[in-house]
Amino acid sequence: MTLGALAATGQGHHRGGVGVALPNVSRAPYAGYFGPDADTAKMLEQMLTDPSSGMDAPAAILVETVQGEGGLNVASAQWLRRVAALARKHGALLIVDDIQAGCGRTGPFFSFEDTGVIPDIVTLAKSLSGFGLPLAVTLMKPELDAWKPGEHNGTFRGNGHAFVTAAAALEKFWRDPEFENSLRERGRYLDRRLNDIADKHEEDELTVKGRGMIRGIDVGDGDLASEIVAAAFERGRVIETSGGNGEVVKVLAPLNIGESDFRRGLDILAEAVAEVLGSQTAVAAE
Amino acid sequence: MTLGALAATGQGHHRGGVGVALPNVSRAPYAGYFGPDADTAKMLEQMLTDPSSGMDAPAAILVETVQGEGGLNVASAQWLRRVAALARKHGALLIVDDIQAGCGRTGPFFSFEDTGVIPDIVTLAKSLSGFGLPLAVTLMKPELDAWKPGEHNGTFRGNGHAFVTAAAALEKFWRDPEFENSLRERGRYLDRRLNDIADKHEEDELTVKGRGMIRGIDVGDGDLASEIVAAAFERGRVIETSGGNGEVVKVLAPLNIGESDFRRGLDILAEAVAEVLGSQTAVAAE
Amino acid sequence: MTLGALAATGQGHHRGGVGVALPNVSRAPYAGYFGPDADTAKMLEQMLTDPSSGMDAPAAILVETVQGEGGLNVASAQWLRRVAALARKHGALLIVDDIQAGCGRTGPFFSFEDTGVIPDIVTLAKSLSGFGLPLAVTLMKPELDAWKPGEHNGTFRGNGHAFVTAAAALEKFWRDPEFENSLRERGRYLDRRLNDIADKHEEDELTVKGRGMIRGIDVGDGDLASEIVAAAFERGRVIETSGGNGEVVKVLAPLNIGESDFRRGLDILAEAVAEVLGSQTAVAAE
Amino acid sequence: MTLGALAATGQGHHRGGVGVALPNVSRAPYAGYFGPDADTAKMLEQMLTDPSSGMDAPAAILVETVQGEGGLNVASAQWLRRVAALARKHGALLIVDDIQAGCGRTGPFFSFEDTGVIPDIVTLAKSLSGFGLPLAVTLMKPELDAWKPGEHNGTFRGNGHAFVTAAAALEKFWRDPEFENSLRERGRYLDRRLNDIADKHEEDELTVKGRGMIRGIDVGDGDLASEIVAAAFERGRVIETSGGNGEVVKVLAPLNIGESDFRRGLDILAEAVAEVLGSQTAVAAE
Repeated sequence: MTLGALAATGQGHHRGGVGVALPNVSRAPYAGYFGPDADTAKMLEQMLTDPSSGMDAPAAILVETVQGEGGLNVASAQWLRRVAALARKHGALLIVDDIQAGCGRTGPFFSFEDTGVIPDIVTLAKSLSGFGLPLAVTLMKPELDAWKPGEHNGTFRGNGHAFVTAAAALEKFWRDPEFENSLRERGRYLDRRLNDIADKHEEDELTVKGRGMIRGIDVGDGDLASEIVAAAFERGRVIETSGGNGEVVKVLAPLNIGESDFRRGLDILAEAVAEVLGSQTAVAAE
Repeated sequence: MTLGALAATGQGHHRGGVGVALPNVSRAPYAGYFGPDADTAKMLEQMLTDPSSGMDAPAAILVETVQGEGGLNVASAQWLRRVAALARKHGALLIVDDIQAGCGRTGPFFSFEDTGVIPDIVTLAKSLSGFGLPLAVTLMKPELDAWKPGEHNGTFRGNGHAFVTAAAALEKFWRDPEFENSLRERGRYLDRRLNDIADKHEEDELTVKGRGMIRGIDVGDGDLASEIVAAAFERGRVIETSGGNGEVVKVLAPLNIGESDFRRGLDILAEAVAEVLGSQTAVAAE
Repeated sequence: MTLGALAATGQGHHRGGVGVALPNVSRAPYAGYFGPDADTAKMLEQMLTDPSSGMDAPAAILVETVQGEGGLNVASAQWLRRVAALARKHGALLIVDDIQAGCGRTGPFFSFEDTGVIPDIVTLAKSLSGFGLPLAVTLMKPELDAWKPGEHNGTFRGNGHAFVTAAAALEKFWRDPEFENSLRERGRYLDRRLNDIADKHEEDELTVKGRGMIRGIDVGDGDLASEIVAAAFERGRVIETSGGNGEVVKVLAPLNIGESDFRRGLDILAEAVAEVLGSQTAVAAE
Repeated sequence: MTLGALAATGQGHHRGGVGVALPNVSRAPYAGYFGPDADTAKMLEQMLTDPSSGMDAPAAILVETVQGEGGLNVASAQWLRRVAALARKHGALLIVDDIQAGCGRTGPFFSFEDTGVIPDIVTLAKSLSGFGLPLAVTLMKPELDAWKPGEHNGTFRGNGHAFVTAAAALEKFWRDPEFENSLRERGRYLDRRLNDIADKHEEDELTVKGRGMIRGIDVGDGDLASEIVAAAFERGRVIETSGGNGEVVKVLAPLNIGESDFRRGLDILAEAVAEVLGSQTAVAAE
């Protein structure tokens, strides 16, 4: 919610809370933004190459592999590789914002590992501390660190408590390759459950969004999504929405959630969807 | 070349001369920018409607009906009407920059007259004074004039000399509907001559651009266009280029140019093109 | 009235007509701004030297030798030399805005000639064309011209007509040193007349401001100044005000004004002041 | 270190790490900035009142009662009251940045309590959590909260752990008025010890800065201060510097520091100063 971060976000809601111009950022449509037939990577290339496009040469291209707040849209590996190549060609750094999709959320530790893309800068936060403590890091290639000593510090940087828990979480979970396998397994289970819900309400044209353990159901309408959230809340389940109009009910379960908890949570989601969408039949757990 | 105007231009060349951020402007692709199959008016609508697109609600939409410096691209009446409707729907003013395409350049006095679009603000300059004197005006609906007395004035506003010549030019030329007819006639002649040139060099895939008396030939390459300009200059003819890479040789003849002058000028252009593109046969005048 | 110029002006009235942030400019108090005992050049030095003052290292220091719109405040030669030295010491260019005070207005062609200061950039306009035509120039040391060809041009730059009249004016008036002598003579006459007016209304504490032929009377109150302007207008004399609250009645007569016209104009000003300030005795012409 | 905070800081060092313009902030000299004879509150009043000063009407005036990073300069109660009155008169909110000086650091919980000034907004952080956890709050009058629900939130706001420890700290320490008395007592002790050090090195013209438990010694030179810091570090004592050139050795001991720890820490500081300034005699503890 800082001026710099808000300059970079697409969300009008959050930008609206600022009251000053937020310059120095150009926007380009995400993968699939104009539908399956429009090649947005090619559009970006055209704008970067055309000296009259109005898009200044960027210092960096900032991208999520899965749009966390933007509706769980997923960029293909090919699209990401093309954007990475465009960044390199035009002298721009590639920044992957892995705050939501990183830390194993899509399976591997970094969400881009399977694509072959090597970002210049990666941002991480959320579950990084392994303990709910505030901890965010910006990883960068060493040659990019141009700050002078103490030029960008502050009282609460480098929280010692969070360093300890984050190190423990990395060592406990990521030392054993089995953890990544379990994440992929949980992701497949989640995919199956969400598709079950969508299938149960075929007439409502629900769309399952996201990847791995960052998933959701696009119910097409923010008000509907809010009703589902409220119905889940009545059943003791806190769940959030995502997307430009809050139309995606978003599942971001703990990565190490136990099997019964996960099942129970998704049962509640299924019941909430059924209640709101008026399904007659109870939704059976897997 | 002021900071405000440069903020609004797409041209990187001119923006590059500034050295400071030029904020408060979002850009959207022009009619046909992504090829004939991509509907850029629809793209703009999607971005304006999506609260998460990153495009702030605009105070105004600024558009040319024919892109003067941008390569003589022509927006269809339908595209302009859709953009005008989008502006109205989203509470934005519609500004038509008619500096190059206005004052009869496309036929009627305002370039948008045939489209049914009524802009809120229109900018005019160039041949407005009828005498080469510096004169530019910003027409606006009276209710939009929010300036206090003297809040936006200066020593050289309201140049008396140019007011006299501009009034004379308007009265002399535009009182008689015959003038507009003659413009349309000259436009047709120009169109024929440019297409003749393009046809003569079929293998070079030249494209005739523009509308009325704001026309040009896209030769596909800025260096080639510069050679043609140089060859015309050798023959006593000053001609300019347009387009992101200067790839369009641009014909902006005086609106009241005499028949023989016009023919001679276009003969020279044809000869220059022929010389540069290596045509064997002399190009005959009409 | 461009965004760049408005960013640099101190006048809130004109800045208020913009509606966007006008960044990249820091302000420092002018000579005498905080009274005769406060050394504003020293204050500027302190702020430029203190890394914690909040004033970024400037690319240039922009200054008038006499504040045209700011109330005809006059910087001493010593103050200007100190500011020039500060600019040099801190790697900033020195820009003298000589639009009002230049072209002989204070005696010599450039208002800073008598100070020994050599600016890096000088702006000139107003009477430069010698004919009321719009003409402004920015003089700069050749090594400062970093623009690429055509990067900062426009249709109405280099107005041919004004070039001819400006060259004629320079040659006619400035070839003969007698012209500069006559300017200094007129300035002395103007000074005498304005001081006569101030003396006549001693109880009103009028202050004569400015230098040479850029002079005025500070009547302490914008409303009072407006009444004097109106009273002069009733007598066929157009006169303007200056200063933050428009409290200075400003005399900017033509530099080559004839003796009788000048006397008559100042008689009218004296009468207008007398009428408004309620003087009993008629103000005699010199 | 966010763009918004950096826009507001005076420190060139931190601003230099940004690389973009930081607009929307005007600066005014702090109490005493131009020496004891210059009335900077009056200067601010002149600039706010003069429509031609170049200072836009502020939305808020942001001030510290003791400049934490700016060199432990102390504003008098009278100066703060005058600035508060100026804010009210000009329709600006008064924001007191109490991050360093608040939470009892100067004696009372808020550093401005003894002045009668009631800010519209107060910022608090640092020792607020009572436990070294990251916790910062912005207190504002309820009618100023114009944010929509969720418009300005984030994953790590409202850290539960810090809420618990902060509440405990407030209840444990501030419930008993004796705590505030003990702070004032510690402040007097600190004042005495620092003045002892300054007296011991009379020829070096050391100046004791700050108020209460936010104190330091201005040694006149950043390099000298760094040497003292290094000498203290050799003795097992971490101490920081403050001021535009880092010329103030800054004592920000824990508010509840025990008597022997406090004495030992100040002994070390005295020894470090003596070592660096070359004093022959050992500095005795109180």
